[in-house]
Amino acid sequence: MKLDTTVNSIGRRIPRSIPGLGDLAPFDGAFARLDGSYLWSPESRTKKIGAFGGRKLASNLAEAIKRSGLQDGMTISFHHHLRNGDAVLPTIIKAIEELGIKGLTLAPSSLTDAHEIVADAVRRGTIARIHTSGVRGEIGRMISRGEMEIPVMIHSHGGRARAIEEGRISVDVAFLGAPTCDTMGNMTGSTGKSACGTLGYAQIDARNAGHVIAVTDNLVEAPLPHHISIPQYLVDQIVLVDSLGDASRIASGPARISKDPVNLRIAENAFDLIRASGLMVDGCSFQVGAGGASLAVAKYVRDYMRESSIQGGFGIGGITGYMADMLGEGLFRALFDVQSFDAAVTESVAGHPNHVEIDASWYANPFRNCVVNDLDVVVLAALDVDVDFNVDVLTGHDGILRGASGGHSDTAAGSKLSIITIPSIREGVPSIRDQVQTVVTPGETVDAIVTERGICINPRREDLAKLAKDAGLPVKDIGRLKAEIENMTGVPDPVEFDDEIVGVVEYRDGTIVDSIRKVR
Amino acid sequence: MKLDTTVNSIGRRIPRSIPGLGDLAPFDGAFARLDGSYLWSPESRTKKIGAFGGRKLASNLAEAIKRSGLQDGMTISFHHHLRNGDAVLPTIIKAIEELGIKGLTLAPSSLTDAHEIVADAVRRGTIARIHTSGVRGEIGRMISRGEMEIPVMIHSHGGRARAIEEGRISVDVAFLGAPTCDTMGNMTGSTGKSACGTLGYAQIDARNAGHVIAVTDNLVEAPLPHHISIPQYLVDQIVLVDSLGDASRIASGPARISKDPVNLRIAENAFDLIRASGLMVDGCSFQVGAGGASLAVAKYVRDYMRESSIQGGFGIGGITGYMADMLGEGLFRALFDVQSFDAAVTESVAGHPNHVEIDASWYANPFRNCVVNDLDVVVLAALDVDVDFNVDVLTGHDGILRGASGGHSDTAAGSKLSIITIPSIREGVPSIRDQVQTVVTPGETVDAIVTERGICINPRREDLAKLAKDAGLPVKDIGRLKAEIENMTGVPDPVEFDDEIVGVVEYRDGTIVDSIRKVR
Repeated sequence: MKLDTTVNSIGRRIPRSIPGLGDLAPFDGAFARLDGSYLWSPESRTKKIGAFGGRKLASNLAEAIKRSGLQDGMTISFHHHLRNGDAVLPTIIKAIEELGIKGLTLAPSSLTDAHEIVADAVRRGTIARIHTSGVRGEIGRMISRGEMEIPVMIHSHGGRARAIEEGRISVDVAFLGAPTCDTMGNMTGSTGKSACGTLGYAQIDARNAGHVIAVTDNLVEAPLPHHISIPQYLVDQIVLVDSLGDASRIASGPARISKDPVNLRIAENAFDLIRASGLMVDGCSFQVGAGGASLAVAKYVRDYMRESSIQGGFGIGGITGYMADMLGEGLFRALFDVQSFDAAVTESVAGHPNHVEIDASWYANPFRNCVVNDLDVVVLAALDVDVDFNVDVLTGHDGILRGASGGHSDTAAGSKLSIITIPSIREGVPSIRDQVQTVVTPGETVDAIVTERGICINPRREDLAKLAKDAGLPVKDIGRLKAEIENMTGVPDPVEFDDEIVGVVEYRDGTIVDSIRKVR
Repeated sequence: MKLDTTVNSIGRRIPRSIPGLGDLAPFDGAFARLDGSYLWSPESRTKKIGAFGGRKLASNLAEAIKRSGLQDGMTISFHHHLRNGDAVLPTIIKAIEELGIKGLTLAPSSLTDAHEIVADAVRRGTIARIHTSGVRGEIGRMISRGEMEIPVMIHSHGGRARAIEEGRISVDVAFLGAPTCDTMGNMTGSTGKSACGTLGYAQIDARNAGHVIAVTDNLVEAPLPHHISIPQYLVDQIVLVDSLGDASRIASGPARISKDPVNLRIAENAFDLIRASGLMVDGCSFQVGAGGASLAVAKYVRDYMRESSIQGGFGIGGITGYMADMLGEGLFRALFDVQSFDAAVTESVAGHPNHVEIDASWYANPFRNCVVNDLDVVVLAALDVDVDFNVDVLTGHDGILRGASGGHSDTAAGSKLSIITIPSIREGVPSIRDQVQTVVTPGETVDAIVTERGICINPRREDLAKLAKDAGLPVKDIGRLKAEIENMTGVPDPVEFDDEIVGVVEYRDGTIVDSIRKVR
């Protein structure tokens, strides 16, 4: 092929372009493109610090933010692995406000009780949009009162991974709390005074954000002695701060098994249904959470597996110390851990070779071959359910936003058996409604609702209903159970909502499953 | 905000779009988008198999290729971790030819002696373009004779990762040999009858290709017992084949330390220079290869570290069993392994917690904070060098393509001290020229050329020259060494090249550092 040529900086004659391969850039010195002026990702609006010769360690937060190229209207992200102890988000928001940057989109993996500053940051114009899995406290009240001009977008954990990977959420600068970070930028969540276990949600941000800043209170010599959660090549800058937060709230104590008789009765019913389903055999997989009846279900499962010499395939999800113990005992061959629920998990994450730290896409991106799609059984909690088996985990009885979508709809859809455990009455209010206030998990993906008063099986699952009845379980029609409960409680007046939409609930696949309205 | 609304499939009123958030899709059933008709990546031209309800295990190669959506003109990729034993690439090319697909771009991480079929596939029109790190045998002859209409593009290992991540190479279907794969699609390279160590190059393909097919001869129950190289969520299909190749050529024996007196003299000179540089202190990092004098240099380094009680930070690169032994002995705190050079490494990859499998971007993507940029010392081989310290690792004395760019230019640029070890004369031909035939590594990134007749230090490194002279090392001006050699050998006639360009050498940053011409 005869080609139009030019001479590069070392005197070599090279083609300017090749049909079929496109335009070619002549070599201009080994380090000419590494000064940060050439953006390796043409779409990136933020600045990659030239790695070679770049000073990765920033002097302070303000310098790091400036060097990142953060500007008005951009999107910032955080992870919520530091739970209710997180000081990273508040500290960064303050630093951003001091720099006068406005109109940001806030796209954390979720918001916790530690993030109340967000409500005021919205009022001050620092934050204009929010994408999150959950909201709590004042943030929820602020949104439900209609104080945000642009409605909040609620996503599931798998939906967030999908949204980021498909570019629906495009993070410009990710600020990632790193319980330990080495001088090359390798991060781990499982050691350090602010250890929190895995950094599964943060891995998605690290991989996809235009610019990544590791915020650490434990900077160590490279290389990290073990277990890298996020590798150096995804990290553009490191900032050393005094503390990532309140250690007592980051490293929350091990979840305890409920002693509440209602929860124990629910757990027993749920376990009986799992056993009746026939899914509890060698190789079976489970996700159970930490709240309410969940851990008690895990206890029944554990006892049964021991007695019957069953070895499970894997446990996934938010992992508790209880699940880590089951791994240690050999009851699971592996744990796939996107989020560690309590401090008891940390040692297992750091030390057990089959305790695998997974990212949110591995966990639940619906358009990937995510692991929730290989799940046998999931046991989930709820705020309310309805006669169509729809589940609300977002709005309270007063209509105010106060929950989190989490992995709820992801695991319900992916698993072979999804069980919602819920007390039939809470604070005098019945839990089964004609229609939930806010659909997070659509009823078609829910197999059974288990209360202390009986088990309701989705009419789509005649097979499961037959197994349950054959096992002598207290199966009830959901309409009849609802009437039975309302006989005791009466029917509460519905919350009065305004027409104004203050939030939308995105389903895991990116479609909108419901709206959240302003409370009157 | 008052919004135009619609009602979704579960009767919920939701907005059609939100200013600032864009158009919204109404929920239409939990599994409506998971049938494969909705492409989660709008740019992807190939088909993602809907994970939920999708049958990941294909019946045979032909079905897998058909389901992938592979069509004329697309780009396919492979890894070369199975070395000279690889049967995956030849088997797939044959299957593609049986389906009559034409005009493909072939973009493997490299091509080995096991890939001779490529030359005929080019002649038959199956393959129209090639991107690769290296070529051997008949493929090189075919290219150097000018049989390809479109010139071959040679990249470095870091450059390939960069090209794929920035979309310069857009892989439609990646066929990834998996020495072990579980039924969910998790792959590892470190167990199975075709074990090859890490799958570092393949990780980039898995993460970025439109469609990923795991080709395995060892399908095991999920989850894999340990050490996942490539996670399930990146894998669209699995195909079980009888064999990934010739086990004796996949699991090549441990590299042996050269006994050739010339190589030993070169190694001694190289080691003396490393010691004189002052870089061999606690925390130091090394890359040494397997060929020629390299392993002998490693031996000197090892002995010195033991005697002086030095603990290195990390070793990187293509890792030999020798380096794995040094890790086991505690002489390095970690190994970062993108490619295992011999079978002796496999056990260490699978079992040692600080033997870290890294992908090619972590290793050497120049626009990421890759680990070669944190490297102290690299010892590299060469086919030829020139008086400007440029290095050729691609073309032989006859001008024919027969080498590989590999990590040569990446590590030379990233390291604090890059040493080229080369015998002064090979087969009667002097190794130092006025100009190398093909520049792969530009001289400005080469610190020293070490032969058995003396050490030539790049004039840019006066500091290093002073340290070497102070240590009494045999430092020689490169022009004078060249003359000294030519006194013995004479000056060989240059190879006669045609003007026609048959290949271009891409530098790690995407610029073109040299052209390869047709041999007359």
